[in-house]
Amino acid sequence: MRDIVISYLPFWEKTRLWVLSRPLSGFSETFSQYIMEVSPGGGSEKPEADPGAESVLFVVEGELILTLEGATHQMSSGGYAFIPPGSSWQVRNNASSAVRFHWIRKAYEYVDGIEVPNAFVTNEQDIEPIEMPDTNGSWATTRFVDQSDMRHDMHVNIVTFQPGGAIPFAETHVMEHGLYVLEGKAVYLLNKDWVEVEAGDYMWLRAFCPQACYAGGPGQFRYLLYKDVNRHMKLSGLGRC
Amino acid sequence: MRDIVISYLPFWEKTRLWVLSRPLSGFSETFSQYIMEVSPGGGSEKPEADPGAESVLFVVEGELILTLEGATHQMSSGGYAFIPPGSSWQVRNNASSAVRFHWIRKAYEYVDGIEVPNAFVTNEQDIEPIEMPDTNGSWATTRFVDQSDMRHDMHVNIVTFQPGGAIPFAETHVMEHGLYVLEGKAVYLLNKDWVEVEAGDYMWLRAFCPQACYAGGPGQFRYLLYKDVNRHMKLSGLGRC
Amino acid sequence: MRDIVISYLPFWEKTRLWVLSRPLSGFSETFSQYIMEVSPGGGSEKPEADPGAESVLFVVEGELILTLEGATHQMSSGGYAFIPPGSSWQVRNNASSAVRFHWIRKAYEYVDGIEVPNAFVTNEQDIEPIEMPDTNGSWATTRFVDQSDMRHDMHVNIVTFQPGGAIPFAETHVMEHGLYVLEGKAVYLLNKDWVEVEAGDYMWLRAFCPQACYAGGPGQFRYLLYKDVNRHMKLSGLGRC
Amino acid sequence: MRDIVISYLPFWEKTRLWVLSRPLSGFSETFSQYIMEVSPGGGSEKPEADPGAESVLFVVEGELILTLEGATHQMSSGGYAFIPPGSSWQVRNNASSAVRFHWIRKAYEYVDGIEVPNAFVTNEQDIEPIEMPDTNGSWATTRFVDQSDMRHDMHVNIVTFQPGGAIPFAETHVMEHGLYVLEGKAVYLLNKDWVEVEAGDYMWLRAFCPQACYAGGPGQFRYLLYKDVNRHMKLSGLGRC
Amino acid sequence: MRDIVISYLPFWEKTRLWVLSRPLSGFSETFSQYIMEVSPGGGSEKPEADPGAESVLFVVEGELILTLEGATHQMSSGGYAFIPPGSSWQVRNNASSAVRFHWIRKAYEYVDGIEVPNAFVTNEQDIEPIEMPDTNGSWATTRFVDQSDMRHDMHVNIVTFQPGGAIPFAETHVMEHGLYVLEGKAVYLLNKDWVEVEAGDYMWLRAFCPQACYAGGPGQFRYLLYKDVNRHMKLSGLGRC
Amino acid sequence: MRDIVISYLPFWEKTRLWVLSRPLSGFSETFSQYIMEVSPGGGSEKPEADPGAESVLFVVEGELILTLEGATHQMSSGGYAFIPPGSSWQVRNNASSAVRFHWIRKAYEYVDGIEVPNAFVTNEQDIEPIEMPDTNGSWATTRFVDQSDMRHDMHVNIVTFQPGGAIPFAETHVMEHGLYVLEGKAVYLLNKDWVEVEAGDYMWLRAFCPQACYAGGPGQFRYLLYKDVNRHMKLSGLGRC
Amino acid sequence: MRDIVISYLPFWEKTRLWVLSRPLSGFSETFSQYIMEVSPGGGSEKPEADPGAESVLFVVEGELILTLEGATHQMSSGGYAFIPPGSSWQVRNNASSAVRFHWIRKAYEYVDGIEVPNAFVTNEQDIEPIEMPDTNGSWATTRFVDQSDMRHDMHVNIVTFQPGGAIPFAETHVMEHGLYVLEGKAVYLLNKDWVEVEAGDYMWLRAFCPQACYAGGPGQFRYLLYKDVNRHMKLSGLGRC
Amino acid sequence: MRDIVISYLPFWEKTRLWVLSRPLSGFSETFSQYIMEVSPGGGSEKPEADPGAESVLFVVEGELILTLEGATHQMSSGGYAFIPPGSSWQVRNNASSAVRFHWIRKAYEYVDGIEVPNAFVTNEQDIEPIEMPDTNGSWATTRFVDQSDMRHDMHVNIVTFQPGGAIPFAETHVMEHGLYVLEGKAVYLLNKDWVEVEAGDYMWLRAFCPQACYAGGPGQFRYLLYKDVNRHMKLSGLGRC
Repeated sequence: MRDIVISYLPFWEKTRLWVLSRPLSGFSETFSQYIMEVSPGGGSEKPEADPGAESVLFVVEGELILTLEGATHQMSSGGYAFIPPGSSWQVRNNASSAVRFHWIRKAYEYVDGIEVPNAFVTNEQDIEPIEMPDTNGSWATTRFVDQSDMRHDMHVNIVTFQPGGAIPFAETHVMEHGLYVLEGKAVYLLNKDWVEVEAGDYMWLRAFCPQACYAGGPGQFRYLLYKDVNRHMKLSGLGRC
Repeated sequence: MRDIVISYLPFWEKTRLWVLSRPLSGFSETFSQYIMEVSPGGGSEKPEADPGAESVLFVVEGELILTLEGATHQMSSGGYAFIPPGSSWQVRNNASSAVRFHWIRKAYEYVDGIEVPNAFVTNEQDIEPIEMPDTNGSWATTRFVDQSDMRHDMHVNIVTFQPGGAIPFAETHVMEHGLYVLEGKAVYLLNKDWVEVEAGDYMWLRAFCPQACYAGGPGQFRYLLYKDVNRHMKLSGLGRC
Repeated sequence: MRDIVISYLPFWEKTRLWVLSRPLSGFSETFSQYIMEVSPGGGSEKPEADPGAESVLFVVEGELILTLEGATHQMSSGGYAFIPPGSSWQVRNNASSAVRFHWIRKAYEYVDGIEVPNAFVTNEQDIEPIEMPDTNGSWATTRFVDQSDMRHDMHVNIVTFQPGGAIPFAETHVMEHGLYVLEGKAVYLLNKDWVEVEAGDYMWLRAFCPQACYAGGPGQFRYLLYKDVNRHMKLSGLGRC
Repeated sequence: MRDIVISYLPFWEKTRLWVLSRPLSGFSETFSQYIMEVSPGGGSEKPEADPGAESVLFVVEGELILTLEGATHQMSSGGYAFIPPGSSWQVRNNASSAVRFHWIRKAYEYVDGIEVPNAFVTNEQDIEPIEMPDTNGSWATTRFVDQSDMRHDMHVNIVTFQPGGAIPFAETHVMEHGLYVLEGKAVYLLNKDWVEVEAGDYMWLRAFCPQACYAGGPGQFRYLLYKDVNRHMKLSGLGRC
Repeated sequence: MRDIVISYLPFWEKTRLWVLSRPLSGFSETFSQYIMEVSPGGGSEKPEADPGAESVLFVVEGELILTLEGATHQMSSGGYAFIPPGSSWQVRNNASSAVRFHWIRKAYEYVDGIEVPNAFVTNEQDIEPIEMPDTNGSWATTRFVDQSDMRHDMHVNIVTFQPGGAIPFAETHVMEHGLYVLEGKAVYLLNKDWVEVEAGDYMWLRAFCPQACYAGGPGQFRYLLYKDVNRHMKLSGLGRC
Repeated sequence: MRDIVISYLPFWEKTRLWVLSRPLSGFSETFSQYIMEVSPGGGSEKPEADPGAESVLFVVEGELILTLEGATHQMSSGGYAFIPPGSSWQVRNNASSAVRFHWIRKAYEYVDGIEVPNAFVTNEQDIEPIEMPDTNGSWATTRFVDQSDMRHDMHVNIVTFQPGGAIPFAETHVMEHGLYVLEGKAVYLLNKDWVEVEAGDYMWLRAFCPQACYAGGPGQFRYLLYKDVNRHMKLSGLGRC
Repeated sequence: MRDIVISYLPFWEKTRLWVLSRPLSGFSETFSQYIMEVSPGGGSEKPEADPGAESVLFVVEGELILTLEGATHQMSSGGYAFIPPGSSWQVRNNASSAVRFHWIRKAYEYVDGIEVPNAFVTNEQDIEPIEMPDTNGSWATTRFVDQSDMRHDMHVNIVTFQPGGAIPFAETHVMEHGLYVLEGKAVYLLNKDWVEVEAGDYMWLRAFCPQACYAGGPGQFRYLLYKDVNRHMKLSGLGRC
Repeated sequence: MRDIVISYLPFWEKTRLWVLSRPLSGFSETFSQYIMEVSPGGGSEKPEADPGAESVLFVVEGELILTLEGATHQMSSGGYAFIPPGSSWQVRNNASSAVRFHWIRKAYEYVDGIEVPNAFVTNEQDIEPIEMPDTNGSWATTRFVDQSDMRHDMHVNIVTFQPGGAIPFAETHVMEHGLYVLEGKAVYLLNKDWVEVEAGDYMWLRAFCPQACYAGGPGQFRYLLYKDVNRHMKLSGLGRC
């Protein structure tokens, strides 16, 4: 993440960003993920131009002032905000050091008869991780949204492995996934090949189907996981005109 | 198919599903396939939101009550329903155990001068499989729709192999295909490589061109095959604006 | 090309076809190629439903009656017809054996100030192939349209190699290409790998860049080549809404 | 770049071109790059038909007369012109030998509250390259646009390496990139493989992430680099209709 | 097995052969396998020059007169002879058509206190195949030598599969193996890849470890299998001089 | 390790074995490794025929009576015996269940002026593992022979990893290595590829150079490691005759 | 074949050489091939030190004086000499330009009761090539030794293809082969891959099994082919000591 | 080169070593290379036990006292000694820090009528590197032995590249080669793949055929190169017994 790969955005002051994923047709079309770095005094009064975009902000380091529908939230490391589409919001760094946070944007998929979800601001420290059954406590997920809440069309969770476990599992391979490693390292079985990932790596794959994982130590292995959920697969109207 | 890969849909009660294929631009754009599992008492009064989608339901296990344009059908294992676009339909599980069925959805492609096909409900037991010529009876296809019926734009068939045969054949490689193995196992030659598939595997390939198959025993090898048929290849209007 | 890969089209009688290429977004979006086989008495009064599609017909075997804007053309082996978009045309096989022909369809790209090209019907026998310079006569192209005629946005040519030559050349790799081998066989260098092709093979590649070719004997090696030409690369308007 | 790969365009006289990159959906959708060769007396009064396209012209060899919003510019080797969308412009070769130049076209992405950038014409000789820190002067970039100027949505720069250096670096892998080697040769590490490139090679990759480069001598290794910058990643509206 | 690959041997009349495996240092050093074809009237009075070589002959087609230590044996299809090292033997074809047989030669490994095995002549028809447990009778081995007989240092068996079975198994991968397919065809999993074999194929591999097999029909799949057995692994004396 | 891969040896009663590695010229020429399984009452009065072979026995399961130069040793799980070349020894299983042990044989390399090492019998429980520096105690080696003892020309050690650690290390790639996994599982980086190994796997590689290891949990990952040591590389006399 | 790869030999004056193949244990152990270049005045009175080596010399360019058992032979382009083991011979270049020739050396394999073959000197011009059946004259072999002559244990032939033919064939894959391309170029199918070879290329493969060849034009494609023939496969005595 | 890969040798005090290459049958059979590290006070009175071995010592760091046939040599960095077979020699480190040197051992190949070469001790500083023609001085070789001196059967040279050059060359691929990178780094083309090497890497390849090299800067790229030279290829006597 050296200077040469930095991007910039209009209407953001003293801010640079790294684009982790970009929507491309035929692949992850409705979702994008940035790492934002706002220097002291920086921020934006007009952060989002797309009225159909919902957002998750997840603070990795520093302090962020989020104003959301008029209410002010002080977010620090582990801070997590869900911002529904069409919200009015602003961010500012009033601290003396830079703040770094993930910004996940998705085109919200409206459904007749289902309401848009409410905004919320929380911190991962305030949420109890849920252990996977049959994994001896070596694998847990911090869920910010209830799985039965049909209003949400994306889940942004934190997955944590304890060192050492060889955990067999199966993930669906047709959903959009974005996986950013927050801490530690591990070896993944993707299709027939093992790949090593470590903090700062990002995987953005159409066919994401790890079938095993060896988490290395001495500390935990943790990643931020994006998935789209709770919606019918859209059929293209190409055939109907 | 453990819990972690489960999806949910709005307006479906006591139901979970596995998404086998998802339309993506540049690839299988108009078709999607789910495995649905409806627990006792579950079902949906509003199963489909897209008025242009036609559906095939194929019951694998349990009992499903399908109400289609006001008529009620009791579907059990092997049950097969074709639902034209714009139909009014509902499903319910009134039995004491879960029902599992495939749900194949496609954006129906209308043609001027060709009528939309009629709905029908049947069971694979009631249909005589058609043997492939020159295969010694080791390869047969259960066809639910007549090949000369131009109203249909997809075929969802069941293909059955007897154990042991090495059957050379050639499939076109430009049509959309979805293949779900219902029973048994086999080795396929895809391009230059052999791959082993067994019950529960799903192949969803742009370039589906198996050139040989060794079906293992002791029982049959059977799969559910989706193909799009009977329509002109649509030319993109990109060049004309 | 056995029965199992056959397709059918509405409004075509006693006709079956093999789809060689299909438009897919992100790849060859405006072009499609079929091999048509019309049995005696068969044909179509309504062959094309898309008013923006131009066509080339190239007869491989048998006799085809083409009625184009009211004029009747008897086409036999080597017969070649260019049909502009929006034309009125019909085909019929009045002979006692089947006729087989290639049908190449493309969404014509209109340009302000450039006219749509005229229809024409000819036969490859009536056109002198043009030899490539510096190839000792071992490589020649039969061109049906003048290269300087900006009205055309596709070229469908026949390329012929004499047996034995090792001919180094370079083709651009960003144009759409479809290549159907009419006769003989050869080995091609594609990227870093050699592939063998023979009569009946079809290559449809985004990155078509053969760098060498060894044509086998004892006869000629010939293929039908589609290329899109003479138009600006369209920039997607995605960025402007 | 022999004759067989030449393209032509309407409304361009005595001009042929080589298409280096072409927009395709799912990949580099808004950008295209040509090498233009205009013979003496040639040029165009109507070079661009798309009112939303911005352009960069970069002259490699010969003399080009550019008329831009009524002003005439004499461009020679190293000449560089930025042409905003909707501009009125013409080109002509009044010299006695051919002129060759790169033409990079992009669909300009408008942002509410941000103005369209002004046109300018310059020469790379007039711009001081900026050395990369920590590379001993062996790596420098000639920038034609200020990095903080949010009006621009693409950068077309020239990168220059001195012979011999093994320079580790990291480039973002989600931006659109086009890289044309102007001079010299080098070996690049792309993913896990090394590839050799030399003058005249073009790389056009979705996942462009060289991690090391060995520039060969005896002279410099230089390339023309296209990147898209300063805009939000567009979320597809697919989910909202 | 056309003429161009034929070999000849001294002291064999009217005989040609195909060498299937050849001892090479570092690999199968003590064993070789030929297919012999003796025309009418042909044979050899001096078939073997190496006094330390033991042999197995297995007749595939035709009639062979074997004289072994003075006794004469009429061998026909399925005939099998074990010839200990140092034996006196001759072969002759007195029939009117050619005889074809496998000749497997091995340097016999003497052990102090263990006798050299006796010669024997039999036919595979006279030996009951032994079914593998847990394979439903779909896999059986015809053994010509008792597994507990320590005098023998090689086993040459016939393995037979019924059509269709998918039989998982594991073979040791450090013994010398030669496998010649006598009849039918099958797909093997070798390491991670599947390979198809059919009658006439020969596999001669240091690391022979098929883990699964799909035998095709309609008939049986059978092969002749060579293994070395019942001896210590020889340690090279290289380190001791 | 099912019956079909079993081997047998002369002069061993009620004993079967699996050959893990075999000396081959050009590769591990002086070393071989077996897993021995002796049923109750079984054993051998004449276990080794090669007077130049040294041996290590390592008991995995059951009880083994070893008589070595007249002294009797009761060996149970973890028992380890070093037997110099030319020793007189016998083994017997007097227990009621089978005993399984590794038998590693090597041609001892004599050096003028260096004595042959003494025999010894011990148990891994009686030896303190030595932790690798800088690995946080997650990696330790149980050494049965002092590294400075030049009499020994092989080391057979036990290596133990704690769950979870990602341990970077470098092993020389020109020594003979045999590695048998005793317990647990792990992922290894061999050259550029990761491979997964688990209890019962054996690796026998000329170029053994793992560069990283992720040991899975929940228990330890342990393997038995053979290396040849303390001798000059022998130069072949091929060039001198 | 630039200077840096040149070798030299004792007792050869004004001579340099390129070593094409070298005997290595486990692979082509008894055969070696050089290209010799002797400058004017150069040669050797003591060319061969190994009394068991037989040789073939084949002159490519220039003039060579061969003295063989006292007789003098003037060899020019196409000249071919067979030199039995133990012969007395010398070579000298008395011309004014360099002479280049292939020197193939093999350890002659003596057989009891078979005589050593006689020396001979000839020229490929004097020998009629033998056409392969069913290849339309496009494939022929110049044989220097009768195939039924059991005294010879190697064949060194010249194989010639006419331009253009696609010739399917099968070569045994267990014999030693050395193939040097004398003229032209071609594409070979080796196992599953095609490789291109041209004049000056050398292939030296244990598993030589081309299955098809496309010879390029405009001239012939010719190569010098070494094979070992007419001997039993030697069984290593490793198992008997 | 951490402790775990260290080896030790008999009769060497305070010395550890890393084995870079080891003779194996079928591959580099007569040559071995070590990196020796002798601590202060260490050394050997009996360094070599094989009377047929010749040696080269090349000092990389520190001071070494070499006594060779009674004469004492003080060797420092760049010091180079050639020791003929059968020499009497000893080494000692009398300095206060460790000395590190390469030790290359080869079985000397005697030739009737050619004398064994004399010993010599020198330093690379005292020898003028020889520039390769046509490489602009960017590639030079330090030769310690005259190329025309037939007494020597190995060359151990130092090759030096200047930063940046892309130097095409061809090395013979049948000689034994060992290449140790002393300084800098570079990218090599081996067969079809590029590999990166840097100081401390060792390549030991049967088929060593780099075809291009990009040497990185800022300093020189240098390696120590072993080749066997000036001898006939030995034909195995396998065929003659």
